[in-house]
Amino acid sequence: MQFNINSLAQLNTPEFIEQVKAKIDGKTKPLGALGQLEDLAFQIALIQQQQDIEQPLDVTSAAVFVFAGDHGIAAQGISIAPSEVTQQMVANFLNGGAAINCFCAANQVQLHVVDTGVLTPLQHPKKSAYLQNGSYIESRIAAGTNDFSQTSAMTIEHAQACINQGAELIKAYFNQYSVIGFGEMGIGNTSSASALTSLLTSQAAELTVGHGTGISDEQYRLKLKLIKQSIERVHKAYQHKQPNPIECLAEVGGFEIGQIAGAMLACAQASKIVVVDGFISSAAALLACRINPNCRDYMVFAHKSEEYGHKLLLAELSAKPLLDINMRLGEGTGAALSVPLIRSAAQFYNCMASFADAEVTKVV
Amino acid sequence: MQFNINSLAQLNTPEFIEQVKAKIDGKTKPLGALGQLEDLAFQIALIQQQQDIEQPLDVTSAAVFVFAGDHGIAAQGISIAPSEVTQQMVANFLNGGAAINCFCAANQVQLHVVDTGVLTPLQHPKKSAYLQNGSYIESRIAAGTNDFSQTSAMTIEHAQACINQGAELIKAYFNQYSVIGFGEMGIGNTSSASALTSLLTSQAAELTVGHGTGISDEQYRLKLKLIKQSIERVHKAYQHKQPNPIECLAEVGGFEIGQIAGAMLACAQASKIVVVDGFISSAAALLACRINPNCRDYMVFAHKSEEYGHKLLLAELSAKPLLDINMRLGEGTGAALSVPLIRSAAQFYNCMASFADAEVTKVV
Repeated sequence: MQFNINSLAQLNTPEFIEQVKAKIDGKTKPLGALGQLEDLAFQIALIQQQQDIEQPLDVTSAAVFVFAGDHGIAAQGISIAPSEVTQQMVANFLNGGAAINCFCAANQVQLHVVDTGVLTPLQHPKKSAYLQNGSYIESRIAAGTNDFSQTSAMTIEHAQACINQGAELIKAYFNQYSVIGFGEMGIGNTSSASALTSLLTSQAAELTVGHGTGISDEQYRLKLKLIKQSIERVHKAYQHKQPNPIECLAEVGGFEIGQIAGAMLACAQASKIVVVDGFISSAAALLACRINPNCRDYMVFAHKSEEYGHKLLLAELSAKPLLDINMRLGEGTGAALSVPLIRSAAQFYNCMASFADAEVTKVV
Repeated sequence: MQFNINSLAQLNTPEFIEQVKAKIDGKTKPLGALGQLEDLAFQIALIQQQQDIEQPLDVTSAAVFVFAGDHGIAAQGISIAPSEVTQQMVANFLNGGAAINCFCAANQVQLHVVDTGVLTPLQHPKKSAYLQNGSYIESRIAAGTNDFSQTSAMTIEHAQACINQGAELIKAYFNQYSVIGFGEMGIGNTSSASALTSLLTSQAAELTVGHGTGISDEQYRLKLKLIKQSIERVHKAYQHKQPNPIECLAEVGGFEIGQIAGAMLACAQASKIVVVDGFISSAAALLACRINPNCRDYMVFAHKSEEYGHKLLLAELSAKPLLDINMRLGEGTGAALSVPLIRSAAQFYNCMASFADAEVTKVV
């Protein structure tokens, strides 16, 4: 699938960009006093290419999609939980009991859950009342990836299918949402995200591997060893040439990571605001940007995760997240929490009075 | 006025505190994975002394009170705007055109505006439709403070009246709100907050004075000189003994700062969640804590302001704010933006499933 994404500089005329700047600077506040929210309003106005931002307060305007998938490498015991927890947590999402359900409810964000390849699919999954207006989407590639410390996580065809299916499924929601957040669930997926980050950035595993959701130092050493081993395996297979992004995904990725990247690319192409959650979603964001760099312009980074490798990923993506509250949960929890800040930026941009409107002496 | 405030350790039994900890740790998430939101849920449960937190989602449960007052020192030209802007911005609040109106609307927070001593009171202030269910409260002490670089900002009687009136006016809202945020508006009030912080902490003005909402380096040098001069004046008047908190308020404070401190103390006494905005609100928070240290246990710090002296204030109050997005506006804007995070913490604490409830394998 090819993505045709314009950068925001291509999408907007210099005159319009100046108008947006002037609109923000003319508001009744000292210049720049709303900090990152001013940058955010500026970005949103350019994404939407219009003087007023769409329905800033509409509670149906934002959703988080949680992509779930299993990872063969989890069998190596480098996670705090066994693979069965992926499926259990998907059931928890559908029953409304997970953190992401609570944060979506508290912040009027709709929730959708996508099975991209959980080991054992849910039998008779029921959309619970707690899922509000959300849905359960089956977009399975296979029953979990292969153990990438031993062999390729998936075939090139499966990697390509991840991008395509992610892009395809998200399109159904473009009429409904202007803000789309991405989260994930998958035991073992910090390993996949770390290895993928190392492959995409050529940075050592020591800089990308962390303690996940809380493994012991012994588990960490094993995790690091296996990921270093995987990177060597890939380098050997590609005879020390840089594999392309789809090849990197196939070698060490996950079905949920690939489908998130595909969905992000489709969102950027459709001028949607792409909200990136934590470490794993950021690895998917980097993959999307490697496939089409213009994708970056549409991304809002929700929070800085406690996971060690997130720092490197954020630097690589030149991102300063909105929140930094020591979270390391995934599920799109940071994305849901950042939606009120996005709505607040839209609201001040659309509705705040100018010095002239309010007859306030302009501060210089 | 005396305040009878229990610390949270006095208010709750060790058994209950353990129960709250266990409830948070039993949720379907890795231990500690929700970071600061776990600390926040813990604090709220202890403030409310009950297993479930009150109406976490009720959109009428939170309000921001913006206290406005003028400062004699503004005549020295150490602000980016003249004193008339205080009154103009109060009118802007009532007309719904300020940043705080937008953030309250976007986050379902009610807004109340308090005139504690604007130079020229508003003629025929009208509660606009934009103020939603809020109100305009007259709680004036005088028409602005004296220039504290020359003489005491106010009398001891006025300082005491600030505390009493702030405490009194806020009580009318205790039936309505469980979360009460504090913001301010007053040209010249970073000068007052800096001087007050220096007096209360015995720290040099160089550590507490900043560029406010954007003064030039030349104005900064004048501001610093005047504040150092004021501190010397006070030290001389008190013969180098430490003035008590009310005396500090009288010497260099502001009517809005004093009334905020009084209101915070009354909120803590009534077991309300006190949301502290930025630099000036934090100076008022420090004043409140110097009057009654147990007050601190009820405070949630909304955001880290760009204003230089806020770092010292936050350290003095052992506070790590929820947001750090380079804002420096005041008006309670940070407080309004933090309300969704407070609601989210309450929601996960009340509604998130435990490992047992959800039949998820407990991660260790």
